[in-house]
Amino acid sequence: MEVIVRVGGAGVCGTDNNIQRGLANPSPKLPYTLGHENAGWIEEVGAVAASAGMKKGDPVILHPLISCGLCKACRAGNDMHCVDSRFPGLNTDGGYAQFLKTSVRSVIRLAAGTDPVPLAPYADAGITSYHAVKRVAPQLYPGTTAVVIGIGGLGHFAIQLLKALTPASVIGIARSNAKVEFAKQLGADAAFPAGKDGGLKEVLDFTNGLGADAVLDFVADQGTPDTGVKMIKKGGTYCVIGEGGTVSDPTIDMIVRELNIIGSLVGTYNELSELMELNRMGKIKITSKVYPMSDVVQVMKDLKDGRVLGRSVLDPWK
Amino acid sequence: MEVIVRVGGAGVCGTDNNIQRGLANPSPKLPYTLGHENAGWIEEVGAVAASAGMKKGDPVILHPLISCGLCKACRAGNDMHCVDSRFPGLNTDGGYAQFLKTSVRSVIRLAAGTDPVPLAPYADAGITSYHAVKRVAPQLYPGTTAVVIGIGGLGHFAIQLLKALTPASVIGIARSNAKVEFAKQLGADAAFPAGKDGGLKEVLDFTNGLGADAVLDFVADQGTPDTGVKMIKKGGTYCVIGEGGTVSDPTIDMIVRELNIIGSLVGTYNELSELMELNRMGKIKITSKVYPMSDVVQVMKDLKDGRVLGRSVLDPWK
Amino acid sequence: MEVIVRVGGAGVCGTDNNIQRGLANPSPKLPYTLGHENAGWIEEVGAVAASAGMKKGDPVILHPLISCGLCKACRAGNDMHCVDSRFPGLNTDGGYAQFLKTSVRSVIRLAAGTDPVPLAPYADAGITSYHAVKRVAPQLYPGTTAVVIGIGGLGHFAIQLLKALTPASVIGIARSNAKVEFAKQLGADAAFPAGKDGGLKEVLDFTNGLGADAVLDFVADQGTPDTGVKMIKKGGTYCVIGEGGTVSDPTIDMIVRELNIIGSLVGTYNELSELMELNRMGKIKITSKVYPMSDVVQVMKDLKDGRVLGRSVLDPWK
Amino acid sequence: MEVIVRVGGAGVCGTDNNIQRGLANPSPKLPYTLGHENAGWIEEVGAVAASAGMKKGDPVILHPLISCGLCKACRAGNDMHCVDSRFPGLNTDGGYAQFLKTSVRSVIRLAAGTDPVPLAPYADAGITSYHAVKRVAPQLYPGTTAVVIGIGGLGHFAIQLLKALTPASVIGIARSNAKVEFAKQLGADAAFPAGKDGGLKEVLDFTNGLGADAVLDFVADQGTPDTGVKMIKKGGTYCVIGEGGTVSDPTIDMIVRELNIIGSLVGTYNELSELMELNRMGKIKITSKVYPMSDVVQVMKDLKDGRVLGRSVLDPWK
Repeated sequence: MEVIVRVGGAGVCGTDNNIQRGLANPSPKLPYTLGHENAGWIEEVGAVAASAGMKKGDPVILHPLISCGLCKACRAGNDMHCVDSRFPGLNTDGGYAQFLKTSVRSVIRLAAGTDPVPLAPYADAGITSYHAVKRVAPQLYPGTTAVVIGIGGLGHFAIQLLKALTPASVIGIARSNAKVEFAKQLGADAAFPAGKDGGLKEVLDFTNGLGADAVLDFVADQGTPDTGVKMIKKGGTYCVIGEGGTVSDPTIDMIVRELNIIGSLVGTYNELSELMELNRMGKIKITSKVYPMSDVVQVMKDLKDGRVLGRSVLDPWK
Repeated sequence: MEVIVRVGGAGVCGTDNNIQRGLANPSPKLPYTLGHENAGWIEEVGAVAASAGMKKGDPVILHPLISCGLCKACRAGNDMHCVDSRFPGLNTDGGYAQFLKTSVRSVIRLAAGTDPVPLAPYADAGITSYHAVKRVAPQLYPGTTAVVIGIGGLGHFAIQLLKALTPASVIGIARSNAKVEFAKQLGADAAFPAGKDGGLKEVLDFTNGLGADAVLDFVADQGTPDTGVKMIKKGGTYCVIGEGGTVSDPTIDMIVRELNIIGSLVGTYNELSELMELNRMGKIKITSKVYPMSDVVQVMKDLKDGRVLGRSVLDPWK
Repeated sequence: MEVIVRVGGAGVCGTDNNIQRGLANPSPKLPYTLGHENAGWIEEVGAVAASAGMKKGDPVILHPLISCGLCKACRAGNDMHCVDSRFPGLNTDGGYAQFLKTSVRSVIRLAAGTDPVPLAPYADAGITSYHAVKRVAPQLYPGTTAVVIGIGGLGHFAIQLLKALTPASVIGIARSNAKVEFAKQLGADAAFPAGKDGGLKEVLDFTNGLGADAVLDFVADQGTPDTGVKMIKKGGTYCVIGEGGTVSDPTIDMIVRELNIIGSLVGTYNELSELMELNRMGKIKITSKVYPMSDVVQVMKDLKDGRVLGRSVLDPWK
Repeated sequence: MEVIVRVGGAGVCGTDNNIQRGLANPSPKLPYTLGHENAGWIEEVGAVAASAGMKKGDPVILHPLISCGLCKACRAGNDMHCVDSRFPGLNTDGGYAQFLKTSVRSVIRLAAGTDPVPLAPYADAGITSYHAVKRVAPQLYPGTTAVVIGIGGLGHFAIQLLKALTPASVIGIARSNAKVEFAKQLGADAAFPAGKDGGLKEVLDFTNGLGADAVLDFVADQGTPDTGVKMIKKGGTYCVIGEGGTVSDPTIDMIVRELNIIGSLVGTYNELSELMELNRMGKIKITSKVYPMSDVVQVMKDLKDGRVLGRSVLDPWK
């Protein structure tokens, strides 16, 4: 089942900063290689991959997990709940490297001739955003409103995905003016600075005081869970994708407004495959910039300081 | 659209105690009549009800809301989200009375000859429990486990409904030994006293440490939201139906376990209609005891003190 | 509940031709007024409509059925399955008239200042197409293909709706070259003439021999059910909206390909409301041309002869 | 991924008779071994199976397909739509043999100590019935009716599954009086002989002329598709599981009654796993009789002549 991939690009994620700062739980044993958003080219294939038609030079993107394929979750397609998985870059060596050994189960081939390098962030930022959008999409019929909190690597996909897959009006909320503008460029019907109340007043104004049908919170820290829950309409959904804070709501409010508060985690192999199809069709465009691996310290710092629009990618061959 | 109902029985709910103690928000203006779980017989009908075939003497049970029928929620069948509704016994005069004026939209006729009096609690305790069970049922396939926290008026329906509508194993959790036994009599596969940790250890033991697929919390106070959330399996659902406490969970836990935390509120007209069909078929049995209205003070006290198995009903004609 | 509407426009549908030719079953009693796609302005309101805020001069579009609001189907929002409905223009006098008496339950108010006249076809052609698209949409993820057979009044909405609400590639099939071109203008990714095999070869070529995930057949006559069913992929759906022919398939094919063959009928009140929101947002545009009522004979003949692009509307005041 | 299973029992299916009579399309090349419903014990395991904890002597039941695990269908859990599968007993050597080589992906371990021999029919008759019941179950709320046409090996599971998983009333229809009685013993609320009209009159009488919400047709031959479609209620579903005949319905009827006509094919690995859980819990009981392999000719003849209640199983070691 094994496949060796020549890494073309590895996306740089906020989680990488957290791991570096020792915030991962459990913390990986050192020495250890970061990088959980990987794309490149097939370098060498085992028998199963060969019989599946994979061959050296094929451009590929990698599902972030190496799932077992045999557990109940895998047999239902829910790779992210696999009970016997590894997550390169989180709990085993990842893609900040020239080669990565993975499983045929993680490999998605891209159309011949595709340059995989700038696409690497689809492998984690993209799929995680797509999975969350698919979960709320069934309730986003014409006339509804969706809010995206945080216009970083994940949020920049979410704005586009909501517009491509649903008829909802989409509001972006970001801390910096640059990202408020970025949200509009990505297709948001409106975008507001987080301000003091996390954009709550603006969302309520936009929805005639009713609140939004779905709120996707890619920050989930520094107060956004409080304001995010307040933004939801009766029967609506607050979806947590970011991490750091705590969601808290009185049960009386949960029942009177019949709220749905859900957590969302990466996504399935087929979801990443569908997402790459959206990229191929031009319905979703990635904003990413490629740096040589030697810039890794500066790139990770830029991310921490909120200076990245879209996503940065490291090229281990430069 | 109007119908006058001769009240045969009015169920006594914990909410009645809360209203009496001034905990309702907003508090109803006095003088005012309690009673939001009502059944009886049609006394007099307006033109619309008459043309729908309703006539004096028909045994009936009443949906707890008087919904408008014209708003978007009503047009989707979601009576409980009606934007122009009244709730007799909560925000307008209710059924602790000999007659109640309601709308044809609230009336469900029972089979000829049915004694509606002991059935009154289906109108609120029953429908609320049924609505919550229907929401979690799609994820309860063979091999899964559901937990019912609180075996009061609502929980005593939930145990039976989970067994009748799903193949899940059902665990009941209650504070008193009498109610633990009651849960078993109602069909629970296992029942445990809440003890110090709310039954958490027992649920984890029963599920080989994985947790339950769905937890229905009819208490949602005094620590149950904390232990209830801990009882859930990856991808599972914690459903709040009780009130009083606060649900709180770190966002990192929400996403890593991909939890669903949802609030559930009464139910639809059709749901009450379906529930009465389950009662008629004998798939669900109510445990209720009828008292004369003059016993109201003692009956409400018994409820507050946890001495009621199932539900008490007041008969305003005795 | 009554409302009198000043008819601004009444759409001309193939069903009108069928009724005129005596093909309706049961045939309406004469004299009788056609017109089941109606829009205009409120002329006069009863008490319920007034209290719902409706007033003379409001631009409105009418749901095609007058549903009872009390049966199980209405209480679930499924107006089209109402057991006690009337259908103006089909089984009671319709909108080829200056005024039409209807129920508050059929009235959808449009944004102030909207000209309702050219929008009338949304009331039947639009809603029927929208209902069918919503039924197949959940299986149209990125990489899938949907086929629209028949680019008439309904099909011209379906092409746009599939593009607006799903990421599927959309193929249009029509008999005339003019309509093949029209399909492309409406946004179809490809469009083919029906030719001898109803476009079967082209659909199989487009989908690498696998077939389409969903086929919406707005003709359902003259062989399209045969070729339409052959176009579907394993696990796909063939949705019948037109009428005239017969669907027929060997059971061995039904199971080996695990086919879904479904009939689709108008839609719900909320669906028409959502559709008008899509129109307001500019996501769907109607192609319609307004004629004075005196042109009715010519307009109906043009439709029968396949010379109409989009839909014709009659203005009873001209 | 390979596993060798010592076959304990192989169920005898009507499809075996069809293959023997040369009706399979394509026909398997001879010599060739029948048997697609297999259970037994693990005899020998490859490395993957060993690391998954499988070992000699474990009682097992086999999913009927050997699916690839890598195609889009497999990655969504839809084993029956695998594009690179083999089906032992249909298109490769099956279980009318003492040993069968299969894949770890087909093996479901049973509880230690389980006798797998009489359970073999769950592997195809059971899973096919379970898959069909799961597809219609969401529309079977209290007050609805489901019909099972054909009380053979599959139908005898369907009656029990509908009662265990839904609150619907269940009607069985069979040709022989013995099977009508059998349906009642299995829990059907009513059972009727097929008679001249396939039980149509009885179903309409039972449902007050409205028709059934779901009809599962395990015969799908000799007129049952005609009468089966006529039995359905507006908005209901006719599900084809048998084979031989042709489904045919005018499109006008498809749309006016908004019918769903669906084909259903075996089921997924997880579905077989869930079904064995229902068996373990005692919610479903198999009626099967075990014969020595030397009786194969008589057993297949008995099946063809309609003399089998439940299912016959061949033991290749006797």
